Amino acid sequence: MPSIFKERSKDAGSFARTGTLHLNGIQIETPIFMPVGTRGSIKSLSSADIDELGYNLILANTYHLYLKPGKEVLDHFHGLKKFMSYKRALLTDSGGFQVFSLASLFKFEEDGVRFQSHIDGSHHKFTPASVIDMQRSIGSDIMMVLDDCAPYGSDLGRLELALDRTHRWAKESYEYWMEKPNGQNVFPIVQGGVNESLRKRSLDTLQNIDFPGIAIGGLSVGEPRPEYIRILECMAPYFDQARPRYLMGVGTVVDILEGVKNGVDMFDCVLPTRNARNGQVFTSFGKLNLRNEIHRLADGPIDPECGCKVCTTYSLGYIRHLHKVKELTAFSLSTYHNLYFMQSFMEKMRKSIEIGNFQGFYDHWKNLFGS
Amino acid sequence: MPSIFKERSKDAGSFARTGTLHLNGIQIETPIFMPVGTRGSIKSLSSADIDELGYNLILANTYHLYLKPGKEVLDHFHGLKKFMSYKRALLTDSGGFQVFSLASLFKFEEDGVRFQSHIDGSHHKFTPASVIDMQRSIGSDIMMVLDDCAPYGSDLGRLELALDRTHRWAKESYEYWMEKPNGQNVFPIVQGGVNESLRKRSLDTLQNIDFPGIAIGGLSVGEPRPEYIRILECMAPYFDQARPRYLMGVGTVVDILEGVKNGVDMFDCVLPTRNARNGQVFTSFGKLNLRNEIHRLADGPIDPECGCKVCTTYSLGYIRHLHKVKELTAFSLSTYHNLYFMQSFMEKMRKSIEIGNFQGFYDHWKNLFGS
Repeated sequence: MPSIFKERSKDAGSFARTGTLHLNGIQIETPIFMPVGTRGSIKSLSSADIDELGYNLILANTYHLYLKPGKEVLDHFHGLKKFMSYKRALLTDSGGFQVFSLASLFKFEEDGVRFQSHIDGSHHKFTPASVIDMQRSIGSDIMMVLDDCAPYGSDLGRLELALDRTHRWAKESYEYWMEKPNGQNVFPIVQGGVNESLRKRSLDTLQNIDFPGIAIGGLSVGEPRPEYIRILECMAPYFDQARPRYLMGVGTVVDILEGVKNGVDMFDCVLPTRNARNGQVFTSFGKLNLRNEIHRLADGPIDPECGCKVCTTYSLGYIRHLHKVKELTAFSLSTYHNLYFMQSFMEKMRKSIEIGNFQGFYDHWKNLFGS
Repeated sequence: MPSIFKERSKDAGSFARTGTLHLNGIQIETPIFMPVGTRGSIKSLSSADIDELGYNLILANTYHLYLKPGKEVLDHFHGLKKFMSYKRALLTDSGGFQVFSLASLFKFEEDGVRFQSHIDGSHHKFTPASVIDMQRSIGSDIMMVLDDCAPYGSDLGRLELALDRTHRWAKESYEYWMEKPNGQNVFPIVQGGVNESLRKRSLDTLQNIDFPGIAIGGLSVGEPRPEYIRILECMAPYFDQARPRYLMGVGTVVDILEGVKNGVDMFDCVLPTRNARNGQVFTSFGKLNLRNEIHRLADGPIDPECGCKVCTTYSLGYIRHLHKVKELTAFSLSTYHNLYFMQSFMEKMRKSIEIGNFQGFYDHWKNLFGS
């Protein structure tokens, strides 16, 4: 496969790096944070907002889109991007993780996983090939393989079973994908829980297949942060330099800092959008709870150092009021701000790596968002 | 008082007219529809959206703003317009109607109405002077007097009591307002239920006071449409030509047509915004239910003849999907479209009056929205 990634600079004191991801003519600077548009919209925002915020790689969830609007609708509209009037790049998960976390019932079989919809209890089955097909209908630039993500706390037997299944399905996915790549990419998913030797084995096995990138699954699933860091550290020296590394479902400002420090290039998480709807916003001086009584008469913006249209237009006191009375506008204004923050945070992080100050950047933000 | 209204053209075959409302340097073409921003935001939209839609007169509800964020906050922020970063004109009701329709308990007294908040049961009292004071804190360009809006179906005794109270309070309001007009206007409210002689008496009494405009209350409160039309018709010949007439809480496309036909200049209603959130949009070919199965594969816009950014960007099929999965974005896109529709509908109506084709306009839209 021709490489889709080019490393641009490396931090001297860690595995942090910057690079460029090339996806069907779209260039994406890494490390990057991808906002989550689960069912074809970033909650409360429009596709025009995503463009305005400057995001050129977003995530959508295959499990949700498979159930609604479904494959037929997505085929009819020539994929999710056209359906939602979004013109940049798209990454989708395989749907596996949502089956394990959302579906009302699921059962592994040799060739896939059976499950019942969390919406109506209807019966379905995902296989490595079927989720590739679904992601072909979605039209994502980066697709994910079906994997087995064992829950945090699983014993060694369960973790090894998950690894074997994940690796076997990854090979099947690779072959199935290669029959008709069609400009789409596929990443396999490293598993192994918090077991270092399984993680290394998984990384080694999957990097031996010619996938254009590599994803890390099964982290940020409930393990304490020291465990999370230990596993990132155990993999960092072994990543293939030529391929982008994507840490799935991560995360908080601090978790992203740890990820980048350990060589990760791509992140996604619902946290900035979900927290915004719950009244928590991110600022240059840390997290802020919009509903707090202390902000009742706050004339200034959420963050005086933020240049987003919410901060340059509305006062913290007004947005607090909207949250207190549960106005829908509270959700969109807060979401917009948090996604602007994340975009700006990642941009500053890339710059810090390029000018050789990643450690300073890391210390500054870890101190502000550490708790 | 210097007049705030100038009639511009009159329909030959009805009482329909166009005019210009002058409010603190802002010129508003009438007939106008005002969207409702109950608690300081048009639900799901931002103040920037209101500007973009071209609305220069909107409504907010005194009852809601009195409870939250409350007078102290509005005073601190120098009024609602600054609080919500909205720069055009603002009209507020007196809060009376919400007391009668929302408050958990209320009781008339000689000098006002006592009530308990529908939020927390706390005790409050509104008087003619106190609601003017509250609207001074809100900083509306047009304030309303406290009135007694007897429910539809009230007997003659109750209607007469309401009329006396409404007129007495209107005079008190006028005097209290005149002590410190401060660029704000006050409109009294014509009552009288569906009784023609009471309506005429109320109109006559209130027009004898030097208010800058006149509002009509107690219509569109449950009466059948023929009753609604009969009452509008009985008042139409008696309106003072020099003052703007505002029909409160109206309404549907057809109710607005009947209002304009009978000389009304100003309307407000939550219907276009509330219906949008429930999946009903207005189009050049009538009402449309976005959730309908028939739109599942609809590639075209909600309304091919609509020039709004929603119709020029997103397909009906996509917006249907967002409604079906209850995405927040469904609410903002549909609300934006409906408010664009109302703005465009009123603009075309003004034009029809000016070119002498109001009857043709009336027939066309009544036919499309008549049911």
